Amino acid sequence: MTDPHRPDAAQQVTIADVLRGHSRNTPDALGAICGSHRYSYRDLDQRVNCLASALGASGVHRGDRILWLGQNCHRLIECLLATAKLGGIFCPVNWRLSAAEIAFVLRDADPAAVLWQSAEIGDTAREARELAGSDALWILHDESGAGSYEDLIGGGEAPDPRLDASEDQAVLMMYTAAFSGEPNAAMLSHRALVTQGALVAGLQHIGRDYVYLNCGPLFHVATFMTTIATFVSGGTNVFTPRVDAEELCRLIDAEHCTGAFVMGPTMDQIISCNSDGRYSLKSLRTFAGKPEWTAMVTVDDSPWGRHPGGYGQTEVMGLATFKALGPSLGSHGRPAPFLQIAILGPDGEELAPGLTGEIAVRGATVMNGYHNRPELSVERRQGGWHHTRDLGRMESDGSLTFVGPLTRIIKSAAENIYPSEVEACIRTHPAVADVAVIGVPDRTWGQNVKAIVVPLEGAAVEPQEIIDHCQEHIASYKKPKSVVVTSSLPRTGFAVDYDALDSLFGGGGYPGARS
Amino acid sequence: MTDPHRPDAAQQVTIADVLRGHSRNTPDALGAICGSHRYSYRDLDQRVNCLASALGASGVHRGDRILWLGQNCHRLIECLLATAKLGGIFCPVNWRLSAAEIAFVLRDADPAAVLWQSAEIGDTAREARELAGSDALWILHDESGAGSYEDLIGGGEAPDPRLDASEDQAVLMMYTAAFSGEPNAAMLSHRALVTQGALVAGLQHIGRDYVYLNCGPLFHVATFMTTIATFVSGGTNVFTPRVDAEELCRLIDAEHCTGAFVMGPTMDQIISCNSDGRYSLKSLRTFAGKPEWTAMVTVDDSPWGRHPGGYGQTEVMGLATFKALGPSLGSHGRPAPFLQIAILGPDGEELAPGLTGEIAVRGATVMNGYHNRPELSVERRQGGWHHTRDLGRMESDGSLTFVGPLTRIIKSAAENIYPSEVEACIRTHPAVADVAVIGVPDRTWGQNVKAIVVPLEGAAVEPQEIIDHCQEHIASYKKPKSVVVTSSLPRTGFAVDYDALDSLFGGGGYPGARS
Repeated sequence: MTDPHRPDAAQQVTIADVLRGHSRNTPDALGAICGSHRYSYRDLDQRVNCLASALGASGVHRGDRILWLGQNCHRLIECLLATAKLGGIFCPVNWRLSAAEIAFVLRDADPAAVLWQSAEIGDTAREARELAGSDALWILHDESGAGSYEDLIGGGEAPDPRLDASEDQAVLMMYTAAFSGEPNAAMLSHRALVTQGALVAGLQHIGRDYVYLNCGPLFHVATFMTTIATFVSGGTNVFTPRVDAEELCRLIDAEHCTGAFVMGPTMDQIISCNSDGRYSLKSLRTFAGKPEWTAMVTVDDSPWGRHPGGYGQTEVMGLATFKALGPSLGSHGRPAPFLQIAILGPDGEELAPGLTGEIAVRGATVMNGYHNRPELSVERRQGGWHHTRDLGRMESDGSLTFVGPLTRIIKSAAENIYPSEVEACIRTHPAVADVAVIGVPDRTWGQNVKAIVVPLEGAAVEPQEIIDHCQEHIASYKKPKSVVVTSSLPRTGFAVDYDALDSLFGGGGYPGARS
Repeated sequence: MTDPHRPDAAQQVTIADVLRGHSRNTPDALGAICGSHRYSYRDLDQRVNCLASALGASGVHRGDRILWLGQNCHRLIECLLATAKLGGIFCPVNWRLSAAEIAFVLRDADPAAVLWQSAEIGDTAREARELAGSDALWILHDESGAGSYEDLIGGGEAPDPRLDASEDQAVLMMYTAAFSGEPNAAMLSHRALVTQGALVAGLQHIGRDYVYLNCGPLFHVATFMTTIATFVSGGTNVFTPRVDAEELCRLIDAEHCTGAFVMGPTMDQIISCNSDGRYSLKSLRTFAGKPEWTAMVTVDDSPWGRHPGGYGQTEVMGLATFKALGPSLGSHGRPAPFLQIAILGPDGEELAPGLTGEIAVRGATVMNGYHNRPELSVERRQGGWHHTRDLGRMESDGSLTFVGPLTRIIKSAAENIYPSEVEACIRTHPAVADVAVIGVPDRTWGQNVKAIVVPLEGAAVEPQEIIDHCQEHIASYKKPKSVVVTSSLPRTGFAVDYDALDSLFGGGGYPGARS
């Protein structure tokens, strides 16, 4: 717990306090299941105390980063909680990264300790460690022996270090997908975790009887949200290293799992793997799907089950708007009730409903900034709002429509035009497979809009059709002045390479502020 | 909004930000209805800006108290929000108090401004003002003319002062019922209001389509919780000065109210007043009751509608546990998911489930202390917990059973005995109408337990029966050593007068710490 002598101590709840609470009030409830390990909340609290004490004795201090370089495991959440009890910041790293990418994370995060894994990723981890010249304490979690994870914990009982930071300090950091350049680690507070966990629990009907199968990647906030919701509610988290359809079936059956993160392809694998019905998956409350799937599981009738999804990003601890929060005109639901959302124009001014601008968020789940990116952090919180760098529109009922990423702005005369918005419109044309919009220099207007369009296979697209389509659906000044039809767009990874498009099609003249 | 240059500005949401958000995102939605007045959220925001500017120009500063000495009215919530925009603290006063009691509040709160009412309580207010020698700015809200409320607001548009304190500062204070001595005003933060409002909205299915009839007393947190939930959700608050069955029927019908605070006696009045069905009350989602009532209204199937109530107090912004949060072994439901609850022994140690001790709370809805009671405030937050001065027990499923108020402790040998717990046990005896338990000095054990019992009319009670009954249901050391049967208990107001009981029946020798 936070220093009890602070005048506001009685208003502070850290994620470690949540563990202490379960250990005090429901000590025998099962907190975590992983392989043959089954730990009650009392067990978990004691193991976390031992780990925290060992890390503290090894020189891990307040504010230090602890990295998890491994797959899903109960030890991941133990590490988060031990870090919390030391006032540190826990960072689960994407174990699918290359050695060079992990080395970047090691240099950027500069951790005091790295919990790493031998199985499947041992060689990559070793190579990354070498590349980065890491001087952290490296602790192997999945092998025994001196200095291993279980060796540190095995030292018997240890007192609770009670070095928690205040609840508004960061306890979790997650690297976000980088659209361009380096990835950045969003720092999330105790309060962000507890607040989001409480809301998600309410919308998913997660209580202490909930058994959540952690099969999705826990280095992504989307899957971690439910892990935290289950933990905050005193439910049971079941861990499995990665998605394996047969093993998921076995675990759902054996542990009577009520929740799991299952995507479409996994559903198909489960349908085929369990076609003979040898596993009972009826305990699983999940979305309806193909008839075979729906027959195997229980269709989730919670608000989330009926209306999943919303708008969010790692920087706001997952979702900021939820379709589960009631009917909405907007495509992405309504804001979390403790959050404020505004749509901002290019100068930070608040826009009226119906106008497209940058989605801005304020409230308890907003990040504390990016680790090691002081300037970017200040830029993203200008004017007292978290700037998402995404475009959206508030509908007349106060719900949100997400339009697309705000990459850059085209300026035509006095008008600001967001390429994403024009692209979203063109994408609704029935003959269009892909599209990118750029600005080209214009002597009279500064810039004008050019669309580069990829038609669907076998379809033909006339430039004038695209222009007419835009004229019909969005403000006239946003419509392209010229349209190029091409066979594919240049990309770096998933992202369209706009710099390459500019070179190829004469783009340029963008206003200085956001290039 | 809080100073946008604070590094944590993007994480701060004040109650005034909520108003700004509705005014920005759903400006035309109806925020308040009162008599012939109908205000959209845009209107409300503008009126609040005018009021705040006028109060600011009259010398109301950050941290100042603004008192509302009137009945229910849209101006009450406008005052709360104007106070929020000035960084002050709003206090709605019980308008049923005597002039002397109001004078006490005036001296204790030392307000910069008092918004008062002529109708029904004008004479009492004037007398109280005189008694207290109040030098505050007194503003009459229900009459027109120079210096009146509407006169201040009528000055046209005014800029938003944007002097909000941070969200953890107090914005509301409410005097709690005093069991003994003077009443104390619990100071509640922006965050307490927004957090509780968001939770209550979820449990009561309050959204922007909710129309809440404010007929219950708004100087009580129990009714104010729903007002705030409706406001946070962007719904419509309808105000009526006080409970009047015919007027409630008219308003529910005319405004299609979906919620109202209706107690049993009012239900009976409504049944008789609307026996001819001339008002349609079908829009009202409320608890089932007598068949005539249930036929008139729509039975509320929200979690709250199905399982209302829980444990709480003004000091934690209403309820801290809710029966609506899922099945529970305990009598008073489960803790709010963002709160921590512990049961503490007399030395502040955390007790295991099943043991009775003081209910302690930690989290976002806990008060910032009592106004003008520095010592008592420190006492109530010892060890980083809010001490409720109520007794309870955590059940094995993590739910709470409320036992009774912790008044004082009887010490018998090394054992601590809570009179409320013994009283709660004796009250379950079928022949008992009322009971009080005191401690009497004992040479060997320090104290022993004595019960003073009032039998039900016509029933006879043997002392030994009571002792046996306790022996059967609670720990043996807690059972009374002696039982006195009497016809009534001495009281001051609602509260049993334990000092008088001690004098009458030889009580004394209580341990020093909590007398």
